[in-house]
Amino acid sequence: MQTRVTEMLNIQYPIIQGGMQYMSLAELASAVSNAGGLGIVPSMAFPDVDSLRAEVQKMKSLTDKPFGFNISLVPEVAMPEVIMDYIQVLVEEGVPVVETSGQRPRNFIQPLKDAGIKVIHKVTSIRHGLAAQEDGADIIAFVGAEGGGHPGVDLVSGPVLWAKAVEKISVPVLAAGGIVDSKSLYAAMALGVDGVLMSTRFLATPEVNASDTYRQALLQIPENGTVLTMTSLRNAMRVANNEMAQEILQAEKDGATLETLMPLISGRRSYEAMQNGDVQHAQLSMGQGVGRINEIMTVDEIFEELINGFQERHTYMTNLSAVFK
Amino acid sequence: MQTRVTEMLNIQYPIIQGGMQYMSLAELASAVSNAGGLGIVPSMAFPDVDSLRAEVQKMKSLTDKPFGFNISLVPEVAMPEVIMDYIQVLVEEGVPVVETSGQRPRNFIQPLKDAGIKVIHKVTSIRHGLAAQEDGADIIAFVGAEGGGHPGVDLVSGPVLWAKAVEKISVPVLAAGGIVDSKSLYAAMALGVDGVLMSTRFLATPEVNASDTYRQALLQIPENGTVLTMTSLRNAMRVANNEMAQEILQAEKDGATLETLMPLISGRRSYEAMQNGDVQHAQLSMGQGVGRINEIMTVDEIFEELINGFQERHTYMTNLSAVFK
Repeated sequence: MQTRVTEMLNIQYPIIQGGMQYMSLAELASAVSNAGGLGIVPSMAFPDVDSLRAEVQKMKSLTDKPFGFNISLVPEVAMPEVIMDYIQVLVEEGVPVVETSGQRPRNFIQPLKDAGIKVIHKVTSIRHGLAAQEDGADIIAFVGAEGGGHPGVDLVSGPVLWAKAVEKISVPVLAAGGIVDSKSLYAAMALGVDGVLMSTRFLATPEVNASDTYRQALLQIPENGTVLTMTSLRNAMRVANNEMAQEILQAEKDGATLETLMPLISGRRSYEAMQNGDVQHAQLSMGQGVGRINEIMTVDEIFEELINGFQERHTYMTNLSAVFK
Repeated sequence: MQTRVTEMLNIQYPIIQGGMQYMSLAELASAVSNAGGLGIVPSMAFPDVDSLRAEVQKMKSLTDKPFGFNISLVPEVAMPEVIMDYIQVLVEEGVPVVETSGQRPRNFIQPLKDAGIKVIHKVTSIRHGLAAQEDGADIIAFVGAEGGGHPGVDLVSGPVLWAKAVEKISVPVLAAGGIVDSKSLYAAMALGVDGVLMSTRFLATPEVNASDTYRQALLQIPENGTVLTMTSLRNAMRVANNEMAQEILQAEKDGATLETLMPLISGRRSYEAMQNGDVQHAQLSMGQGVGRINEIMTVDEIFEELINGFQERHTYMTNLSAVFK
């Protein structure tokens, strides 16, 4: 059986691994694609078009299944010309799927559509989802307030947002935020979405691009161990509540501007800290679902739990349904 | 078939209507109990023990099914002696269930336990749930960040909190926050909870204690139409984003204290505004699920949708489960 998402993307399971800046490189993303989902590599982790092209070719060498690359459309991340250059590489290399986010895709989507590339656009509100649909996005991913990275300004809980999205959006809808295992996968699918976007769960894998210290630190973070930084800039980011997060929150309280915050919030600095294992002095982006992750699992083990667990959950619900009669 | 909650409370469905200050009086709560759930009346809506006793007796005249009364243990709401007087009335009248919240129940629970009353304690974090369990609460309700009223300071999304609670808490667990229909009921139950606490959905009923203007206004509020006021007092309250909410948020930004905020946040003032239909100048407490409520339904109609819809959802999931094999 197929869902609209598995059919459109030509994959086995409607489970997409969200692009994670610096973290989800070819090793992780290819493992997800090989397991029957869709892995996504962040293009903006690469400093130039040549290194991006090399990563696409690496993906092709690691999987013969469909995969995706992410393009951040946030104006502060890259100039439009740079974005267009990156898109050109993805088109030339025949990348099957592109994930976009950060602003509505209208100014960037045409070359992707012309090349037959499927576009997953990631949003945090119904109005942004409607705009992306109008622009031609093939699939819209809705990130709830519990999600890692940038959960937006409305901060609507995933389930409320997803159930609403299913009513309002006609193209396929992905649920994102807090989905880390078969229970949360099952619950999300029950709300009527066409698939899920999982990110945080894949941070605690051997395949992720980070130090062991980082992986081990992840396992210690409870469900209430993340905070939203950068809300004063209206660009909230959900990160582990560590020394760096507290420093940023204090600076915001003291009236810091984007300029004065920049040295603290630089993604590159966080990336280096993660690699060095300095988990207190990096913005470690992750969703609240991190509090439900207790062990490092390989991508294959995660998929095994998701698929077997889905069937177990369904048996559980079959028994429980006798109560609601 | 029974769940731990239906068995313990001697009700048909594990669907509890959360106590809502001023709003869920005997007319609403008895309708919920008669429909097979458990209705809860807020004790603190009554100015003295005599009027509380009269409402308990009214409940008894309207239903022969189990029902509950809520007692707020928040120190600012009532002095311990007053709380104990109110508890004494509930004990004398043989109320079957009491819902508590606001602080851990240890100093108040003994007379309830001695009388064989089942205690549902409402929390917003795992640590508070563990404390309530230690104190002897029979059932713990976990309110997610999307919930109305006081969703706490951690602001963990319902599904993440519930799934974690099921792992950590041995007494029965209720899911609260964002549950407004059969889809969200089904999804919550799939996470392993023993039942649900629904509040906001029951605000849009003919049985609720409010003006028609209030009910109609509710239907217009979108999923991103609530805000958290009073976070500066560490007593966040989720309310409709109306003129009053904006006034409170501005006062908080300007450094207001509890004392200076009091005229704005007084529950009595909000209650009067609701009755008068002045929906811009009241703190209208509600969860994000309000954005998924599009029509006024009677309590019976809501239960019909919940129960029939649960079965429809299960058929849907039976079909979908073929994808995850």
